[in-house]
Amino acid sequence: MVERQSGVALWRQIADRMRLAINNGDFDETGMMPPETVLAARFGVNRHTVRSAMAALSEEGIVRAIQGIGTRIERRDRLRFPISRRTRFSQGLGNQTRDIEGRMLEAMTEVAPTAVAQALGLPTGTLCVRMETVNSADKRPISRATHYFPAERFADMGGTYDRTRSVTAAFRELGVPDYVRRSTEISAIHAEGDDIRHLKLSPGAIILVATAVNTDLAGTPIQFSRTRFAADRVKLTVEPEA
Amino acid sequence: MVERQSGVALWRQIADRMRLAINNGDFDETGMMPPETVLAARFGVNRHTVRSAMAALSEEGIVRAIQGIGTRIERRDRLRFPISRRTRFSQGLGNQTRDIEGRMLEAMTEVAPTAVAQALGLPTGTLCVRMETVNSADKRPISRATHYFPAERFADMGGTYDRTRSVTAAFRELGVPDYVRRSTEISAIHAEGDDIRHLKLSPGAIILVATAVNTDLAGTPIQFSRTRFAADRVKLTVEPEA
Repeated sequence: MVERQSGVALWRQIADRMRLAINNGDFDETGMMPPETVLAARFGVNRHTVRSAMAALSEEGIVRAIQGIGTRIERRDRLRFPISRRTRFSQGLGNQTRDIEGRMLEAMTEVAPTAVAQALGLPTGTLCVRMETVNSADKRPISRATHYFPAERFADMGGTYDRTRSVTAAFRELGVPDYVRRSTEISAIHAEGDDIRHLKLSPGAIILVATAVNTDLAGTPIQFSRTRFAADRVKLTVEPEA
Repeated sequence: MVERQSGVALWRQIADRMRLAINNGDFDETGMMPPETVLAARFGVNRHTVRSAMAALSEEGIVRAIQGIGTRIERRDRLRFPISRRTRFSQGLGNQTRDIEGRMLEAMTEVAPTAVAQALGLPTGTLCVRMETVNSADKRPISRATHYFPAERFADMGGTYDRTRSVTAAFRELGVPDYVRRSTEISAIHAEGDDIRHLKLSPGAIILVATAVNTDLAGTPIQFSRTRFAADRVKLTVEPEA
């Protein structure tokens, strides 16, 4: 039998509920979080737990303690990242944030894992460029991605992305003027090892995983990617084509 | 400062990683989980933790211990639930499961929360029917949803759904022959109180939250819903229109 302990600390659950209340606009009238004693009563926990939850929200940049005044709500909502046929990372966040940055961690040519080769319509054993990236908005990391590109066609993807800092720009330089999203699968898991470090998450944080295939305009798959978004910072939106 | 403890039990993290390995097809050759000692070495934890993680996967119906033989993999992947302009709960799961069931927990007429009224394009203070449902696939609960319908137009939604067990069928009886999805927002949080109970989750489990607005074919919003999917059992898929 599974141990009946929760597996998630109480302060984390309370932080989740406070974040939801903030996003729901529960405290919009004052723009401030209620006092600890009020929050403790509302959520049915002690002040120590409220303090830990508040510290977590503070680390996320959602609230800020102001000496002698109280705790101000800094940012109400998560960034909205649209999933559509025209999904582009840099354009996706639009005017929600000033400074979008993509950074390459590494690029290696290697045999594609079976599931990746299948998704790209390639024979088992085909070489791909595997590229690891991290994306930030306003200096805050929001996603980590692992991309695979067929190596025969995109041998220079690593260097080109490293210079242009954009998959769209790199594709253009490598002979793909335009591309579309074929499919996206969305799941959610607890963050692990390297993702915790690169995304500066507290352990136990949730990540939204978007597994996607892009094709060129002729319908040939050109990219497989598995993007891990910090669920505390990003929500995905799906809207029909214009 | 936030306490630097993880907030998520180790067995839960290992269960997540095992689920991922199963879904990746790592054990497809034999269809069996490797022995505890092998898994303990692979994940760098002790056998007790492996046993707890395996018990969790067994409760989820992913693996099954067979006396004298080992642990067999029962089900490789999560159910795929498509999000599209034509999202329909009962059709969504298609041939992945035999038995889809929607069940009403309650229906009440009440003033719509501000955010709901806004999403439905209604003045603040408008009455809505709030309906609570739980959906199961093959007798296993997979999602809990809270729906809001404008009360003037859909006063009988509760009773009609309770009889037809389908939002699509209820809409049809109430004069809406067809409808489309206007928008969906996807986020992920830790499951809470009632959702844990209704979805039979272990505490600390993750839920994928899909917040959606549907309109009739004239473009008038007719439904706001917030569906909580058990992330262990369901992934959401986004594919362009046919």
